[in-house]
Amino acid sequence: MAVASHSSSLDRESVQAAHELIRPYIHRTPTLTNATLTALASTPQDPKKLAGTSWEGRTPAKPKLRLFFKCENFQRIGAFKCRGAFHAIERLKQDKEWLDGGGPEKGVVTHSSGNHAQALALAAATNNIPAYIVMPTISAPAKIAATKGYGAKVVFSGPTSTEREAAAAKIIEETGARLIPPYDHPHIVLGQGTLGLEFQQDAAALLAQEPSPLGGRPVFSILGTNAGIFGKGLDAILAPCGGGGMLSGVALSCEGTGIRVFGAEPWFQGADDAKRGYESGTRVESVKTLTIADGLRTPVGKVPWSIIYERRLVDGFFSVSEAEIRDALKLVLERFKLVIEPSAAVPLAVALFNEDFRSMVEREAGEQGWDLGIVFSGGNVGTDKLATLFDEQVAPKM
Amino acid sequence: MAVASHSSSLDRESVQAAHELIRPYIHRTPTLTNATLTALASTPQDPKKLAGTSWEGRTPAKPKLRLFFKCENFQRIGAFKCRGAFHAIERLKQDKEWLDGGGPEKGVVTHSSGNHAQALALAAATNNIPAYIVMPTISAPAKIAATKGYGAKVVFSGPTSTEREAAAAKIIEETGARLIPPYDHPHIVLGQGTLGLEFQQDAAALLAQEPSPLGGRPVFSILGTNAGIFGKGLDAILAPCGGGGMLSGVALSCEGTGIRVFGAEPWFQGADDAKRGYESGTRVESVKTLTIADGLRTPVGKVPWSIIYERRLVDGFFSVSEAEIRDALKLVLERFKLVIEPSAAVPLAVALFNEDFRSMVEREAGEQGWDLGIVFSGGNVGTDKLATLFDEQVAPKM
Repeated sequence: MAVASHSSSLDRESVQAAHELIRPYIHRTPTLTNATLTALASTPQDPKKLAGTSWEGRTPAKPKLRLFFKCENFQRIGAFKCRGAFHAIERLKQDKEWLDGGGPEKGVVTHSSGNHAQALALAAATNNIPAYIVMPTISAPAKIAATKGYGAKVVFSGPTSTEREAAAAKIIEETGARLIPPYDHPHIVLGQGTLGLEFQQDAAALLAQEPSPLGGRPVFSILGTNAGIFGKGLDAILAPCGGGGMLSGVALSCEGTGIRVFGAEPWFQGADDAKRGYESGTRVESVKTLTIADGLRTPVGKVPWSIIYERRLVDGFFSVSEAEIRDALKLVLERFKLVIEPSAAVPLAVALFNEDFRSMVEREAGEQGWDLGIVFSGGNVGTDKLATLFDEQVAPKM
Repeated sequence: MAVASHSSSLDRESVQAAHELIRPYIHRTPTLTNATLTALASTPQDPKKLAGTSWEGRTPAKPKLRLFFKCENFQRIGAFKCRGAFHAIERLKQDKEWLDGGGPEKGVVTHSSGNHAQALALAAATNNIPAYIVMPTISAPAKIAATKGYGAKVVFSGPTSTEREAAAAKIIEETGARLIPPYDHPHIVLGQGTLGLEFQQDAAALLAQEPSPLGGRPVFSILGTNAGIFGKGLDAILAPCGGGGMLSGVALSCEGTGIRVFGAEPWFQGADDAKRGYESGTRVESVKTLTIADGLRTPVGKVPWSIIYERRLVDGFFSVSEAEIRDALKLVLERFKLVIEPSAAVPLAVALFNEDFRSMVEREAGEQGWDLGIVFSGGNVGTDKLATLFDEQVAPKM
């Protein structure tokens, strides 16, 4: 990992400093509420739904949950990833050694077929820095086109991580470009964590402004203007966990605030690596899963792990089935009228369907309930993919 | 038509009065902008796209368009229809004859398989008034369930309008319930028009606040708080036209403001009845089309027609193909991350793909361009329908 030539302390203050740096480049995405989903989260599940699960025969939990959603599906490039990418570039721009060594001409490189590719391409193009993106030849044509659309040079490789890393290493050797990894780096973690700061402010402001002075019902709010208001804020945040860059950044943003942070994962084909690692005490270093939550197929990185597990800034993990992810996604599309990618539906699936989580909330929060923040991490899903997910002939039954 | 026992003057002031009445019951939906769609609207179409159309061989127009979207997909029941329904009920509640005649116990009735059914069910339930909704037996189970979910009594009928009207007449005879038609009534028109007032205020406020004082890029705004700000506002509004209740209400809301109002329709199987009627001078009284824009399959009603055509408060109509509607819908889902129903995508399809509209804007607005308001009328589309629309095996080629 060769990005950092000077390090950051991994704390809330550094997340705040990152926010100052990237604010001109990112959208302040809205924090939204939805009465239907809040009502559903606060209604016990039908006992029949627990049949065939480890909770079969249990009385469904009765948690009180008021949900708040941080809508990073509206972020630039359609996902939170541009926060980390812009922050990594801003930090390079402060790095005298990189500047003196001709860094801005040599460029940056990463290997990704997902949102990080587009995020780095955008951040580099904004700064007139060349970007090389290694993508597997099997990547979706739309993703390749989008990455090229930001002016990045796309270099193709084989699909395995070994092949991708080799291709990136070759580019570094030939061009001197700097590697910007997708999640396993302090600057990326701090950048992603900035969404947590906004979420805290905006949820607190929403809670303070209820009931609406207009008489009308508030559904939306942009809260940049209310950034000074603080009152009772969120009790907890549920965020999806793939490589853990965003989850660990959000955890840093909450340190010392009293807000508890939980990770959400699919369990299909062992995609719940963070949960297994957290509970066994050993980071799971490799995962091979084809979960529909395709942003969450990677194992947790070392830097995120040090925050999540070693410093215990994440309180625990919960996992859900493919069918639960699809059900949550369907609810968001049909009832919230928002497009999110399957990975982004995972925390909502936990809040609605995971009885371990729900009974924990019932037990710990009691009658008062929780104001729960849910991170909608991104919205990059094509209509072709949606058609496949919801075409009853095609969708796998799980 | 037996709703009105006292009439309203059909003017902007009456729309404002309607807004005061319904404000406690409706969401103030956001006005949003989207940089990608604005850029696309301001880019000439590829000349190849015009092949096979009446514009073949023409140089594509170069309009300058800055788009604003009124997001009624976030309205209660998922569409603007609850504005009219709440207004009709509020007006009944002011009607001494109706009150004295036991109206609140006798209830209200309508025949609809669409958004008006749920809207009336909600408005009636909110006021503890019985609601009878006549729905064809072939209605989607989800729609029947949703309407029953609001506590309405669903009465089934055959699918033709004659059968539906007969079923409603029978209910009126038996119960004394009052008919609340879906669009062809002054109170409905005035209620729907309230979205135009909000749109004018919120777009003007958005235009006034650019560039963002935060440094960040504004994408969302809630503008209830800015309702006093007026500056340069919208130049024009494009709204979908089915029965014409909303389009004519929006036209009333714009009277005297200088904002021009246009209607947008599909042309598949003659769905462009308002356009044909407007251009020929005679209202088209019946339409039989299976356009994917299923909210726009009805002919324009008499009351809307008097506003749209006789008073010339609508400046003209533009129509689009099924493929153009689907392309616009895909852009909204993939780039805006919003779920809208196919009917709601029709005005955007006009702005992006209709060369008559686009060359008119180029000609009339020149270098300065237009700040164009587009009404996203609703978001009620199931994932099953989306799967059908975007499954390449299934979607019809048009």
